[in-house]
Amino acid sequence: MQNITYTYQTRPRYKDIDAMGIVYYSRYYEFFEAARTDMLRDMGLPYSEFEATGFLMPVIESHCKYLQSAHFDELLKIECTIKDLPRIKMTIHYRVVNEDEDMLAQGYTKHAFLDKNGNIRRVPKHFLELF
Amino acid sequence: MQNITYTYQTRPRYKDIDAMGIVYYSRYYEFFEAARTDMLRDMGLPYSEFEATGFLMPVIESHCKYLQSAHFDELLKIECTIKDLPRIKMTIHYRVVNEDEDMLAQGYTKHAFLDKNGNIRRVPKHFLELF
Amino acid sequence: MQNITYTYQTRPRYKDIDAMGIVYYSRYYEFFEAARTDMLRDMGLPYSEFEATGFLMPVIESHCKYLQSAHFDELLKIECTIKDLPRIKMTIHYRVVNEDEDMLAQGYTKHAFLDKNGNIRRVPKHFLELF
Amino acid sequence: MQNITYTYQTRPRYKDIDAMGIVYYSRYYEFFEAARTDMLRDMGLPYSEFEATGFLMPVIESHCKYLQSAHFDELLKIECTIKDLPRIKMTIHYRVVNEDEDMLAQGYTKHAFLDKNGNIRRVPKHFLELF
Repeated sequence: MQNITYTYQTRPRYKDIDAMGIVYYSRYYEFFEAARTDMLRDMGLPYSEFEATGFLMPVIESHCKYLQSAHFDELLKIECTIKDLPRIKMTIHYRVVNEDEDMLAQGYTKHAFLDKNGNIRRVPKHFLELF
Repeated sequence: MQNITYTYQTRPRYKDIDAMGIVYYSRYYEFFEAARTDMLRDMGLPYSEFEATGFLMPVIESHCKYLQSAHFDELLKIECTIKDLPRIKMTIHYRVVNEDEDMLAQGYTKHAFLDKNGNIRRVPKHFLELF
Repeated sequence: MQNITYTYQTRPRYKDIDAMGIVYYSRYYEFFEAARTDMLRDMGLPYSEFEATGFLMPVIESHCKYLQSAHFDELLKIECTIKDLPRIKMTIHYRVVNEDEDMLAQGYTKHAFLDKNGNIRRVPKHFLELF
Repeated sequence: MQNITYTYQTRPRYKDIDAMGIVYYSRYYEFFEAARTDMLRDMGLPYSEFEATGFLMPVIESHCKYLQSAHFDELLKIECTIKDLPRIKMTIHYRVVNEDEDMLAQGYTKHAFLDKNGNIRRVPKHFLELF
């Protein structure tokens, strides 16, 4: 499988800034959510449609390293990548860069697949077919 | 009916601050939610129990005036008041003051009562009995 | 002066949803911020540049009426309008509609103009020239 | 050095819930912030006073594993622990448990120490003296 990559762009708003004048550390995870949601839509399966087929994809682990500060109104590119075909879990990697391609942060989220009864399932076929 | 009043205390966190170094304007509505939720618990009906009886109390209108800035780690008192016995709608009033009793903000939220099918209902009896 | 209007589009994320399964009431104010920030950029004065000229434009009042629920991943259009030339204060009006043009919410924010010392000022000339 | 431990209690609000009906994954990091801020106050050095001495303590890394879902209005205990005397960096560990002591999540944050010019510094003496 080739890497699947998608780049989401955003600008931090007033609501994203903290008392230090930089983007608050948990906002990166909100950017990650926006990036992976738009990636799924771009791959042809909006997350809301995936849910409608009876599945959920909760986050079971999250991680981020903050290398440089991000600021209000600065153009940020959040690049997300899936490197391995998911089986039981799926890992999505993220890099946050600014317009000069300086890397500001990098992280990952791990996801499980649940059916509507909340039981852990293997990744569903119609999801794998996206890859 | 006498006014029902409850005071909730909090300190703004890093996450609540904006690029101007003050509490972001929508966070006051989050403080209002915390205040009215704790008020209901204090009145003897935690909101989660109210929901369990088949009702919801969505916000149908919200308003806030910002008089003075609030800052990181400052002790805030959010005083919420119900002045009138609710019938179809309920209005809750809020005042945000600091330790010196300076008024920083004031606002209100209006709520409807819905049953589980999403239909508007008169305020339920077991709710009125709290007053 | 003609009305100035700008439409910002977004889709509510998981982070925007509340325990009732709909968009949380204070998130509309975050959408309003995104809308007015993009409107200013579109008018030729990104807010970060406006700040760099020594001014701030804090929210002094906010209001929203919620008419219909908004849901996860639904395309929302936030239309913001300035109807009057600002003098001391500026009012921005907002309408939130879905793809079928159903009106979900409407509100406004009022803003003052401050210089860097925090003193209230008339609206600066270089801001008025945008209109 | 003995472990330093502090337990912060909170109840998730409507604002903390996501489209799956559980606490949104990034909110745990907001709970972590509240827990470590209250821990510092309890140790005798409110973070706002620490800042006033010319230092900042930004997050340089964050991590969380989600073991069980947390729900609206459920009492959560966030236990945070410092196991090692900080030198250049400080690691804070967190455990989130419910009233039955079921572990819902665990994570950590790593922090650097900066002076007002943004330069990395060793942990300041007046901070070490808290331990």
